Amino acid sequence: MPVSTLVWLGDKIKIIDQTELPLKLKYLEISDIPTLKEAIIKLRIRGAPAIGIVAAFGVCIGIKHIAKDASKDVLFAALKTTISELKQTRPTAVNLAWALDAMFNTAEANRQRSTQTIKEILITKALQMYEEDRADNRRLAKFGAGLIPNNAQIITHCNTGALATVDFGTALGSIFHAHAEGKKLHVWVDETRPLLQGARLNMWELQNEGVDCTLICDNTAAFVMQKFKIDLCIVGADRIAANGDTANKIGTYSLAVLSKHHNIPFYIAAPVSTFDFALEHGEQIPIEERGADEVIQGFGKRIAPKNSRVYSPAFDMTSSSLITAFVTDRGIINPPFEQTIPNILC
Amino acid sequence: MPVSTLVWLGDKIKIIDQTELPLKLKYLEISDIPTLKEAIIKLRIRGAPAIGIVAAFGVCIGIKHIAKDASKDVLFAALKTTISELKQTRPTAVNLAWALDAMFNTAEANRQRSTQTIKEILITKALQMYEEDRADNRRLAKFGAGLIPNNAQIITHCNTGALATVDFGTALGSIFHAHAEGKKLHVWVDETRPLLQGARLNMWELQNEGVDCTLICDNTAAFVMQKFKIDLCIVGADRIAANGDTANKIGTYSLAVLSKHHNIPFYIAAPVSTFDFALEHGEQIPIEERGADEVIQGFGKRIAPKNSRVYSPAFDMTSSSLITAFVTDRGIINPPFEQTIPNILC
Repeated sequence: MPVSTLVWLGDKIKIIDQTELPLKLKYLEISDIPTLKEAIIKLRIRGAPAIGIVAAFGVCIGIKHIAKDASKDVLFAALKTTISELKQTRPTAVNLAWALDAMFNTAEANRQRSTQTIKEILITKALQMYEEDRADNRRLAKFGAGLIPNNAQIITHCNTGALATVDFGTALGSIFHAHAEGKKLHVWVDETRPLLQGARLNMWELQNEGVDCTLICDNTAAFVMQKFKIDLCIVGADRIAANGDTANKIGTYSLAVLSKHHNIPFYIAAPVSTFDFALEHGEQIPIEERGADEVIQGFGKRIAPKNSRVYSPAFDMTSSSLITAFVTDRGIINPPFEQTIPNILC
Repeated sequence: MPVSTLVWLGDKIKIIDQTELPLKLKYLEISDIPTLKEAIIKLRIRGAPAIGIVAAFGVCIGIKHIAKDASKDVLFAALKTTISELKQTRPTAVNLAWALDAMFNTAEANRQRSTQTIKEILITKALQMYEEDRADNRRLAKFGAGLIPNNAQIITHCNTGALATVDFGTALGSIFHAHAEGKKLHVWVDETRPLLQGARLNMWELQNEGVDCTLICDNTAAFVMQKFKIDLCIVGADRIAANGDTANKIGTYSLAVLSKHHNIPFYIAAPVSTFDFALEHGEQIPIEERGADEVIQGFGKRIAPKNSRVYSPAFDMTSSSLITAFVTDRGIINPPFEQTIPNILC
């Protein structure tokens, strides 16, 4: 990839400000927690895997001011505050909590060491998670590409490419891998209201990679399925319950129902870290609601009367019964999910 | 209604410029055919019934320069040119062609009269169609209201209110009528990408009438159906084939499939003039495609890379098998449509 979504510069994080794309490729350097929180909340960096990893580096930023010789109590107090603040930024994607918990557990496991050593170990841990995300995505993408036939017509929703991860991506990564294998593909890109990650980010990534693509409004996917022969839909996930119910960007459930009606395979591509085995089913997944302004004033002109009531969930929940298979970094998971999903952990 | 979508001022047409809503209530006076064509193409006036009636007045404008003592050949040549130009503005809504044909047939039926008399007869005919549209909508709305229970949760798509017709509206008119009967209602308004007629026009009309309403992105309707108890969907139509297949604003087909999946009644509200008995089924309905700019640059900032390929059909086609019933000015039409639709004409 010609760009990096997220880089650790030793004591600060460098990200692409995704709210500026595709008009500007602008980088932001983040060296404090308030700026990082704002960047996550405003979706300057977004995508479940990416916000997990950026939060892991955030932990390093949140404790960097702790002196070498400070007590462990001081260190752990700063750790807990940082983790608690970052966890609250976005509730749905499990990767965020998963990464923060992994950082805390790493600190805990090394509590007997010096404050300075723990700080160094946490940077190493974050870098390791960064490299693992890169490797996981590459493996996942290879499995995903195996589901994509030559000359495939594909529909996707929201951004799941390099911008949503450390590198390469999940659903879009699978498409990139199939393209790199020499398959001819055409991708129908849902624009993904309200924040238009499909229009702004997928179109940019797909064009950068030379993949043939066409932008559609979200409400057009059904008509595309009726008029053209669509081979598959593939999207990402923010959290997957133990039974396979999946929370992902608002509009995913709609696309899943439409796929079922048209007998189109519907795939969820996500690393194993996206599964939340603590939740039995999808109704237990917290769904973030966003402000009205993103809908009525997001792109210049106001588009509805002032004070209009808006319902803007950032995610929706797709029942596992609508999902053909999961594409993970450990392979394809097929139904019956109640049997196959627990096997991931084996 | 506090505003009039469309008024005939004796020698010109006054319309609300709907592209300026909800930010400005701006009127336009139109006294020549190029301006009228631009207004229809740019959706300054839109909605199948409204563009039918405005085109009828357009015929009067297209022949107003013909001198009293001009020959009938000159008059009919101007008539034909005007009708042909106006018919080309938008291909899908049958009301446009229906109204223009009605004007031409009226002229033909009076060909033995003087040029001046024919010009006067055509103005009278357009005014009569205007009044008929008003009366048809009121009758239709009363039938539609009968399908709406007290405390109803309703989803609608695109604008079908006073702005889409001469007055009151079809699907939205039914909601207004139920509201006026004292029923408590809550309307979920699809924003209706790309031109956002739901956000811009429905929210404005519903709030003006004091109807409780919430704006959602189009991709959120499915999740609303999953989470809340929705009683019905009701939308308009641009053309209905003899078998009941219906062309309406892009996103209608999506909503119909989603309604079926959630066992929600799906109603089409349209005057009888929207049925096109010349077409056996929906695949024969021409579907207008719109330019890329409406999707990627419609409301301020550009939202996709330059030169992105966009597929933007203005309408889609919903199979009659997904439609619970039609609400018309002559009553409710229930299945089996192949038997009940032809009966409308009896």
